[in-house]
Amino acid sequence: MVSCGRCGGRAEVRPEGRPLCGRCFTELYERRVGETVRRYGMFARGDRVAVAISGGKDSASLLFSLRRLFPDLPMAALHLNVGIPGYSEECEREARRLAEMVGVDLILYDTRRELGISTPDFSRTPYRRRICSPCSTVKRYLLNRLAWERGFTKLATGHNLDDVAEALFSLYLHGDVGQLVRLRPLSPSPHPKLLARVKPLWGVTEEESRIYAELNGLPFKRDPCPLSAGSRSRERKAVLGEVEGRIRGFRRTLVSSHLRSFLPLLEGRVEAPPLLECSSCGMPSSTDPCAFCRRVEMARRASARRPSGE
Amino acid sequence: MVSCGRCGGRAEVRPEGRPLCGRCFTELYERRVGETVRRYGMFARGDRVAVAISGGKDSASLLFSLRRLFPDLPMAALHLNVGIPGYSEECEREARRLAEMVGVDLILYDTRRELGISTPDFSRTPYRRRICSPCSTVKRYLLNRLAWERGFTKLATGHNLDDVAEALFSLYLHGDVGQLVRLRPLSPSPHPKLLARVKPLWGVTEEESRIYAELNGLPFKRDPCPLSAGSRSRERKAVLGEVEGRIRGFRRTLVSSHLRSFLPLLEGRVEAPPLLECSSCGMPSSTDPCAFCRRVEMARRASARRPSGE
Repeated sequence: MVSCGRCGGRAEVRPEGRPLCGRCFTELYERRVGETVRRYGMFARGDRVAVAISGGKDSASLLFSLRRLFPDLPMAALHLNVGIPGYSEECEREARRLAEMVGVDLILYDTRRELGISTPDFSRTPYRRRICSPCSTVKRYLLNRLAWERGFTKLATGHNLDDVAEALFSLYLHGDVGQLVRLRPLSPSPHPKLLARVKPLWGVTEEESRIYAELNGLPFKRDPCPLSAGSRSRERKAVLGEVEGRIRGFRRTLVSSHLRSFLPLLEGRVEAPPLLECSSCGMPSSTDPCAFCRRVEMARRASARRPSGE
Repeated sequence: MVSCGRCGGRAEVRPEGRPLCGRCFTELYERRVGETVRRYGMFARGDRVAVAISGGKDSASLLFSLRRLFPDLPMAALHLNVGIPGYSEECEREARRLAEMVGVDLILYDTRRELGISTPDFSRTPYRRRICSPCSTVKRYLLNRLAWERGFTKLATGHNLDDVAEALFSLYLHGDVGQLVRLRPLSPSPHPKLLARVKPLWGVTEEESRIYAELNGLPFKRDPCPLSAGSRSRERKAVLGEVEGRIRGFRRTLVSSHLRSFLPLLEGRVEAPPLLECSSCGMPSSTDPCAFCRRVEMARRASARRPSGE
């Protein structure tokens, strides 16, 4: 029997090679999430938090741990159904089960019903197979808009250390300083209609969230999105996984160097583009029409061209 | 027969997968070195250039190509013998052969003869197996000092794209902004006793320099330094080689993003430490005694402790 490196009990899991029992792991995971929230001042008195849940392990662990850590914080879950056949329905079901289990309200939004579009429509636009890009533009916009319309003050997402490291790696590689300066645990609100965004899982890995979700019996969909196979971000994550195997602590080091050394230098040297108002939807944006309205228009046209019966 | 992708002749080499004949490859290599020199204004009228040659392929290709490209530029070669048994003697021999072949004066410096120390002495200091670090401090200092004492105005080294990418990767990973701001193709002189340094091979890979040295029959030592086995920089280069296999053009992208996006932002925000004068050797340094004098002292003590006959 391998014993828990913390309490000496029976080890059940081995995150980053350290044997731990389920109870100790859960405690450590929640402690880390709590520390991240407090260190970056993510929540303040009066906040109402919308937690974006996708049906996957990260956002399930996010909602569950936040509820445990901050039982008095007003909180609801937000879920978008983007209409991916054989996938989105199951994600929605897991999201419903999770919200019920945690005991929070769930705000559901179905892009087919509300907008007449679904993510697969983008495969018939110039995006073709690079479908993750317009899908995330649409989701980012909708999550903010839904939360803002309902009077929430913060939007929490399940981005984990692996996500952040992969994004940093790509942004440093390509020298995208404008995006780098925005990659932080708490992104303050730049406009009354744009909520501050927080990433409480900034300090935990994908593997840790999977273990936490499993240990706590959270409902989540295991398979990744079928349309993301071969996507750049999934490819890059695989590469970073290999680098981590060769350079221990690679991801954490990259993320902490960003926060400690680069962000303070870049801040104030990189100007955010001025915000206009989208003449179509009225939301703030650096372009008019905004990126969301242009994507929706593209998808609608593609969908109209679709032969009937397809 | 595979044909040269440029002239249609018989392909002899395949740098980065492109088949080329020897003549076209040599032309392209020299064109790239020439472009790097001109783009960054590495040499000016009145310059006298000391070219550091190690006995290896990179500096051999550097000296040979510079001599061809700039036949009227006053130039000499500098070689340090750092006393590594079974290695340094051969390096010195190749350096002598190269200087003779190219037809430039060779300035030779033997650290055992002149200073009473050799690189292996550092294995008996707290550096132990991390011997590359003090060895490069000693070499950097001596190359500058020898060139400065002899009235040279620029010091050229054979750092290639792989070296630069590896250094950038480590510096970005650890957020070492102070060093990052100094990593550039031409480092201007910060003090009359510290020469401007240039890296004309900044844009060519290690593989390309090896091919160029082979095609042109340059004398060079093939084996890497036996003391660098397992060194961090060699490990990191292997990792970056793997990343390059997954992300095509990774090294070039990293280097060009550094130059284009980060350097301009970091410049002026990072202050160089003030230069003092080393009370031991009189050279400018941020510490007193300077890093070189401290390393030499360490090696001398270690060498004095060595049992006779070892």
